[in-house]
Amino acid sequence: MRKGRLEAFSDGVLAIILTIMVLEIKVPHGAANFAALKPLLPVTLSYLLSFIYIGIYWNNHHMMLASTSRVSGGVLWANLHLLFWLSLVPFATGWMGENHFAPATLAVYGVMLLMAGVAYFVLQNCIIAIEGPHSALARAIGRDLKGKASPVLYLAGIAASFWQPWVAGGIYVAVALMWLIPDRRIERTLVERV
Amino acid sequence: MRKGRLEAFSDGVLAIILTIMVLEIKVPHGAANFAALKPLLPVTLSYLLSFIYIGIYWNNHHMMLASTSRVSGGVLWANLHLLFWLSLVPFATGWMGENHFAPATLAVYGVMLLMAGVAYFVLQNCIIAIEGPHSALARAIGRDLKGKASPVLYLAGIAASFWQPWVAGGIYVAVALMWLIPDRRIERTLVERV
Amino acid sequence: MRKGRLEAFSDGVLAIILTIMVLEIKVPHGAANFAALKPLLPVTLSYLLSFIYIGIYWNNHHMMLASTSRVSGGVLWANLHLLFWLSLVPFATGWMGENHFAPATLAVYGVMLLMAGVAYFVLQNCIIAIEGPHSALARAIGRDLKGKASPVLYLAGIAASFWQPWVAGGIYVAVALMWLIPDRRIERTLVERV
Amino acid sequence: MRKGRLEAFSDGVLAIILTIMVLEIKVPHGAANFAALKPLLPVTLSYLLSFIYIGIYWNNHHMMLASTSRVSGGVLWANLHLLFWLSLVPFATGWMGENHFAPATLAVYGVMLLMAGVAYFVLQNCIIAIEGPHSALARAIGRDLKGKASPVLYLAGIAASFWQPWVAGGIYVAVALMWLIPDRRIERTLVERV
Repeated sequence: MRKGRLEAFSDGVLAIILTIMVLEIKVPHGAANFAALKPLLPVTLSYLLSFIYIGIYWNNHHMMLASTSRVSGGVLWANLHLLFWLSLVPFATGWMGENHFAPATLAVYGVMLLMAGVAYFVLQNCIIAIEGPHSALARAIGRDLKGKASPVLYLAGIAASFWQPWVAGGIYVAVALMWLIPDRRIERTLVERV
Repeated sequence: MRKGRLEAFSDGVLAIILTIMVLEIKVPHGAANFAALKPLLPVTLSYLLSFIYIGIYWNNHHMMLASTSRVSGGVLWANLHLLFWLSLVPFATGWMGENHFAPATLAVYGVMLLMAGVAYFVLQNCIIAIEGPHSALARAIGRDLKGKASPVLYLAGIAASFWQPWVAGGIYVAVALMWLIPDRRIERTLVERV
Repeated sequence: MRKGRLEAFSDGVLAIILTIMVLEIKVPHGAANFAALKPLLPVTLSYLLSFIYIGIYWNNHHMMLASTSRVSGGVLWANLHLLFWLSLVPFATGWMGENHFAPATLAVYGVMLLMAGVAYFVLQNCIIAIEGPHSALARAIGRDLKGKASPVLYLAGIAASFWQPWVAGGIYVAVALMWLIPDRRIERTLVERV
Repeated sequence: MRKGRLEAFSDGVLAIILTIMVLEIKVPHGAANFAALKPLLPVTLSYLLSFIYIGIYWNNHHMMLASTSRVSGGVLWANLHLLFWLSLVPFATGWMGENHFAPATLAVYGVMLLMAGVAYFVLQNCIIAIEGPHSALARAIGRDLKGKASPVLYLAGIAASFWQPWVAGGIYVAVALMWLIPDRRIERTLVERV
């Protein structure tokens, strides 16, 4: 039961983050032609990237908790810590989009992704500490190559922001794609358990 | 259980989309007479139409998942894809209402409806691929005449936007009405299964 | 199951309505003394009244569905119809508060209450039509004196808006208080059933 | 079931409060350097403090209801009363952050914390009145030292606002930390019951 409410609360926060982000795509006032939409392109691209990231977090969060049997006070706070960093996504997204992916905004976006990634890692370890090293979750995660590669890539993206901004953007897109590709091995392990 | 969380997350996003749309009906500042409400009429009509569309999507989504037994990673992403297009509804609604249903805004609204319709179709097929062609869902949907007619009508609406804007608006209203009329046959099939 | 999702969706919409209403209490910019809060008093009072109304609707909706066993497509749409009128509460609340309860704003607020009341009545009858006249719900509601008195009082409030605005305000407060007083008879009937 | 919906509604409201608060961290327009982020520091600190408070309330609410078996009409309203005060958190947070923790804003923030604390105390007592003095909840809460100390500390903070603002801020941070430290004894009692 406690797990259910943790999921419901996280779903609520992630759903709201997803939806208020779209408020950064401001309705152009007094202009009803296609030209008025053109300046919205960077904000929309920025929104699309963040939408995918939030989708990935929701998906992974979903699978992680599906193979969790108990939660502790520590898990509740590790989860809130993750939600805190994700709650800054609309801000970082809006700032980056409005300023056409300027270096400082790309760096801040990367820092936010990095902190969220670290928070997710902490949450995952909190749960494994309870579930045990031989639990379905621990086996499903395995060596967690993606989880370990992501922070390194985010750091590379932050560094690249000041050197070649588009490399930073490219790295963030690449990490998203890496997670989007379904990890059939994990799904299979979870399915076997069920 | 995984299905439950998919439903909860979708409910959350749809509920927020529905409610933030109303923020486009801006409180008129410094005017407390009925005349101040008159300029809000187009935005309110636009809101009403989108409210009905979101209601239809929620209703159909509800029924489709009620007759679904399992979800896969592909279904989760097909669902997020649908939510992405629906998350643009508040923007398209506000822009169309503020500009009194101008041609470009009607066309953009139609494109958004079209993409959401396509995304729903993809989601439905993802679920049927898992459930099988003889599942309750596949039988309930049958030949899916409404689902196949909608994109064609949206395309007609988009084309009409530049020719006779009110024809476009009329088509969007007609599609909403077509879905509003209860499809007793589908409900019966689902009820029989239960 | 279908009932569960209807409840979850309604909870989501009502929770968002409740919370975005507070956004009408705008943070005073560049003023950090108590005098800056004084102009916010009417908006805050208006918010408090609407908060109580939404609370009453949530409470009654909760109890009505707790004693409902099935929902139909008609019930889903009757529920969306109710949510539509309630979604206009933030607008009517903000307009009334900002304009210090001016006649036109009080009348519009009353119309919104009236329409929500009618929508609730329709929803209740849709459910009773399914549950049957001897169902726990039908017996719990009984003669539904409050439900029948409310529209009459709202109409009186709308009329009074143009004559003596504070009478209108007083009527809206009185109706809220009438619903706030716990209806022990209904609760007992429901408890007996369980 | 009734308890489930109370939890779901509270989760929804708390999730939205948490997320709309971040809207007070406004995207700086036309500035894409780190200097543009500096003025946002007070608002961000203010957001962080309120995020932790909402997290604490969610956590405690969660545990309290996990050990509750029934809810009454009185509990529903005591819960709405708590949500009312918490719904003012975004306003108080934004005002305090924008004005760099000025005396009046610190006092108002303290009043809001005080009222929310009192509302939580009332809710807790409503539940214990139903559950009985020997219930798991009553035993878990025990002498409720934290619950009794908090209002006194909030009052001290309000008084200190006008004398030494940073003492007030320090007190609010200290109360948050006091609640953050896990109360292993309570958790153990609840776990034993399960």
